[in-house]
Amino acid sequence: MQSYTPPIADMRFVLEAFDYAGQVQSIEAFADYDVDTIESIITEIGRFCAQEMLPLNGPGDSQGVSFDPETYSVSTPDGFKELYTKFLESGFFGLSQPMDFGGAGAPHTVGFLVSEMTTATNKSFIMCPGLTNGLIDALLVHGTDEQKEYYLPKMISGEWSGTMCLTEPQCGTDLGLLTTKATPEGEHFRLSGTKIWITFGEHDMVDNIIHLVLARLPGAPEGIRGVSVFLVPKFLEDGTRNGVTCGGLEHKMGIHASPTCVMNFDNAVGYMVGEPHKGMRSMFTMMNAARLQVGVEGTALSDIAYQAALRYAKDRKQGRSLDPGKQDPDSKADNILIHPDVRRMLLNIKSTNEGLRGLAVYIAQHLDRSHHLEDKDARKVSNDIVALLTPVIKSYGSERGFQNISEAMQVTGGAGYTTDWPIEQYLRDSRIAMIYEGTNHIQALDLVGRKLPKDNGRLLRAFQAEVTGLLREVKGDENLAEYAELLKAESKRLTAVTMEMGMKAFQDAEEGAAAASNYLNLFAMTTLSFIWLKLLQAAYAGDSEQHLAKRQTGHFFFKMVLPEADVYAKRIQAGKAPMMDFNPDFF
Amino acid sequence: MQSYTPPIADMRFVLEAFDYAGQVQSIEAFADYDVDTIESIITEIGRFCAQEMLPLNGPGDSQGVSFDPETYSVSTPDGFKELYTKFLESGFFGLSQPMDFGGAGAPHTVGFLVSEMTTATNKSFIMCPGLTNGLIDALLVHGTDEQKEYYLPKMISGEWSGTMCLTEPQCGTDLGLLTTKATPEGEHFRLSGTKIWITFGEHDMVDNIIHLVLARLPGAPEGIRGVSVFLVPKFLEDGTRNGVTCGGLEHKMGIHASPTCVMNFDNAVGYMVGEPHKGMRSMFTMMNAARLQVGVEGTALSDIAYQAALRYAKDRKQGRSLDPGKQDPDSKADNILIHPDVRRMLLNIKSTNEGLRGLAVYIAQHLDRSHHLEDKDARKVSNDIVALLTPVIKSYGSERGFQNISEAMQVTGGAGYTTDWPIEQYLRDSRIAMIYEGTNHIQALDLVGRKLPKDNGRLLRAFQAEVTGLLREVKGDENLAEYAELLKAESKRLTAVTMEMGMKAFQDAEEGAAAASNYLNLFAMTTLSFIWLKLLQAAYAGDSEQHLAKRQTGHFFFKMVLPEADVYAKRIQAGKAPMMDFNPDFF
Repeated sequence: MQSYTPPIADMRFVLEAFDYAGQVQSIEAFADYDVDTIESIITEIGRFCAQEMLPLNGPGDSQGVSFDPETYSVSTPDGFKELYTKFLESGFFGLSQPMDFGGAGAPHTVGFLVSEMTTATNKSFIMCPGLTNGLIDALLVHGTDEQKEYYLPKMISGEWSGTMCLTEPQCGTDLGLLTTKATPEGEHFRLSGTKIWITFGEHDMVDNIIHLVLARLPGAPEGIRGVSVFLVPKFLEDGTRNGVTCGGLEHKMGIHASPTCVMNFDNAVGYMVGEPHKGMRSMFTMMNAARLQVGVEGTALSDIAYQAALRYAKDRKQGRSLDPGKQDPDSKADNILIHPDVRRMLLNIKSTNEGLRGLAVYIAQHLDRSHHLEDKDARKVSNDIVALLTPVIKSYGSERGFQNISEAMQVTGGAGYTTDWPIEQYLRDSRIAMIYEGTNHIQALDLVGRKLPKDNGRLLRAFQAEVTGLLREVKGDENLAEYAELLKAESKRLTAVTMEMGMKAFQDAEEGAAAASNYLNLFAMTTLSFIWLKLLQAAYAGDSEQHLAKRQTGHFFFKMVLPEADVYAKRIQAGKAPMMDFNPDFF
Repeated sequence: MQSYTPPIADMRFVLEAFDYAGQVQSIEAFADYDVDTIESIITEIGRFCAQEMLPLNGPGDSQGVSFDPETYSVSTPDGFKELYTKFLESGFFGLSQPMDFGGAGAPHTVGFLVSEMTTATNKSFIMCPGLTNGLIDALLVHGTDEQKEYYLPKMISGEWSGTMCLTEPQCGTDLGLLTTKATPEGEHFRLSGTKIWITFGEHDMVDNIIHLVLARLPGAPEGIRGVSVFLVPKFLEDGTRNGVTCGGLEHKMGIHASPTCVMNFDNAVGYMVGEPHKGMRSMFTMMNAARLQVGVEGTALSDIAYQAALRYAKDRKQGRSLDPGKQDPDSKADNILIHPDVRRMLLNIKSTNEGLRGLAVYIAQHLDRSHHLEDKDARKVSNDIVALLTPVIKSYGSERGFQNISEAMQVTGGAGYTTDWPIEQYLRDSRIAMIYEGTNHIQALDLVGRKLPKDNGRLLRAFQAEVTGLLREVKGDENLAEYAELLKAESKRLTAVTMEMGMKAFQDAEEGAAAASNYLNLFAMTTLSFIWLKLLQAAYAGDSEQHLAKRQTGHFFFKMVLPEADVYAKRIQAGKAPMMDFNPDFF
């Protein structure tokens, strides 16, 4: 049996620690969304997640989706269709979407918190509305008024779902290689080609499916600069079936209830979004939203895995405390929470999860600010921080999430390896997050090759100013001195490493690529130290159990997790030689 | 389609690097097993693995085993029974077992190499003979002559298989809690109780199954000192069915073709092995063999995963080399092996795999020496090294194996997440290795709490003498100077950390337990540095492609893997406080 306690109290703590009221609620559009209101919204949604979504998570994994090659149709697992209806009725789907088109206009910050809970309780299911949301974001920015009016209301209500059609058999990471063709025909285009890895490309939960498709116009420039983007609905405005069909499903290690489709476009009618050959812009609007969402997946699944491991640990007695004073005289064995290593594993998960949840809220608040602040410069700063930290949370969040779930399995021993416990499903479901929406190394290249060099390091300076500001704030606070010192040292090292790597990469781009993955993780360590110092600042402002727990969890982070940074730094220093001097014939 | 190239050339390289001829073949019993002979044996077995065992690996995973509750019988997947027959006909099952009982008397060193290949190609299948081997080891040491004569020939021929029945629902790690009862009845005993997680406890490949069962005699002392061990055959000597039946199967994340059984003992006839209440001795003989075997599993599965990832990488073109000079002018994209990060991932796997293969051979050679050397002191030294390094290879080998397979999946991207590629099966199959035969933390406690303190550090001194000996040998060798310095520094740090941890643990046992898991990994780093220096010594003694490849792979290990050690050391230094000062109510 799966079980989930929505982390409402911790979410509230994080909102307050990051001064949600001052940072986001102070924006006119969000004035109604105070912390109490948010708490009651997420409490209600959390209940829906635990009571409606979670019970179908295990069965969905066992049954999986199925494809009928006669009708090209895809069936979701039993109950998913009804769940989708309930999900729409609950009314929180368009929560963070603009009111103009039927959304509730809540801050993205709330959307992020909701996303954690929905992903934790049914990752496969929520991928469908998740992609729809991404498509909505893209249309809001790049769509014509006509497109917005026609598509957005149905998508924000959830009656129609969206997909993102990028990958082709010969091109995944390198989208410049794509060959799907779009030929003009009057006001619209005709698309032909094959796309793969299309999440919810076909399914039975909605009336219409809207595909955002990358394709090439005739005579388009080669590579990424010749890619345009099109809306291709499954059903056209007049109700006729468009020439887009599912050709089959992938069989995967996890997310069995989420159909991963091969989609065949055969002279399908499509409508261009944005300008010709500028398709990557719309794609990136959608992709960036998706990447942030993936960053949250790690926390989501590792939190529910943690809850399962903790449930097991609280119940399990095995071995004796090494401290005779702690031994339970009424039992032949002590509860395993008495063992240092069990605590070490649980705290590894807890401290990184809470740090990553803090990071998600921090990024989400800047996302809201970047859209709504009056002051253009302040908007730009927030936008810079979101851009800089998107690859960090996507990559480190997914990597750490997978590790944490494996750690949760270790706490439960053999039990966790069986399907009697849900952890093995979470482990399988989570592994894809390091791969999709741009592999983790692509995130690292985005950070090192695109985000850092921009305007001579403008993005990094924006973030460093935040770090410096916090260090200034906590100066003289004895409780925080130790942690502030660690953040300061880490931030200083990051600056030095960035400079050194930048110099090397300037002369030889391979140096940057060789360092990138380790650099991203080093960056994540500085970022999480910053987040934790912020959380600890709040933790020392009160004396409740929650405050004390937060202090001890943060202490663990600085002592036991942060040391990771050393190994990343050392590997970066080794440069490209260990990889590039290796003769590839020797593999 | 799964595919496997047995790493024969590398195995031969390792044997020569570790002076197999001088260390093992020089022992009279092994005089016939020269390196050429071994090469031809493992070549033949490797062919069997690739041609006969591997083709059933994927189908076995998909079909799994099944249980018939009417007859309590367990069916293995299609073809497994026939494979087992072929396996016995091939004649290599009793390879490393003594000739007195029908074995071929080969060194364990050869057995380890074989074990890597059989595990790589069909881990589920090989668990059956693997456990039989463990039971044979236990009987050889602790069985009566009568027991040996009756059981060993049938088990060494493989006609009967063996199991190890330890765990009960309320006791896994803490075997002192077990409650299965054994009541004397004439010459034998009657056993009643329930055992869980029994690998191949019931199946259809053999005529008889012999269980080694831990149980308590009436009035036995509480805890681990009241545990005796019994042989419980499925069929008794007169052909009657004994009171031991399978009660069901576990459903697991992986190793689907290996039945994990609940075994019910209902007044079953059993024969005591060894002395009353001293059952843990026999159990540990079997367990130690099993732990070394698990240590090899990591390398086995991560090598075959590496081979799959490499096959993918060699074929895949995506993106452009950042060095224009390396771009393929005849293609729009370059082979992904040109990218530093792809190489980094592949070398992460390759360099640790080859190090761990070296470690397995090094331990196996000492195992052979510990059994056969004339000189008692030399035997003791070898025995000490085996005892010290068994938890290291079991724990680090299984942890690294899992990480490496995940890394191999990352190389293949989305493809590797699908069942079109076998990597996802290897990832699922490998995860259990960190749990069974004593969880990895139990290995760490064995190292820190049992192996280190023995005779004031005698085991560690034996290993350190080997390190010092090697450093002395390579002194002045310019090619090796850099690596020798790194090993020296690592070994020095290990000594200092061991002293410091020992002092703390002497006053407070929880300090040792808190540090243990990170200490084991630190120990593994020193050990692998030692192994790699030894391999590099051999690599610089020749100029073939193989020698050059080994040099570059070893270089990568020292530059990119060894830095891990820093984080382990730092965490150990933090002591128990981050875990034990944490209020368990705050989880």
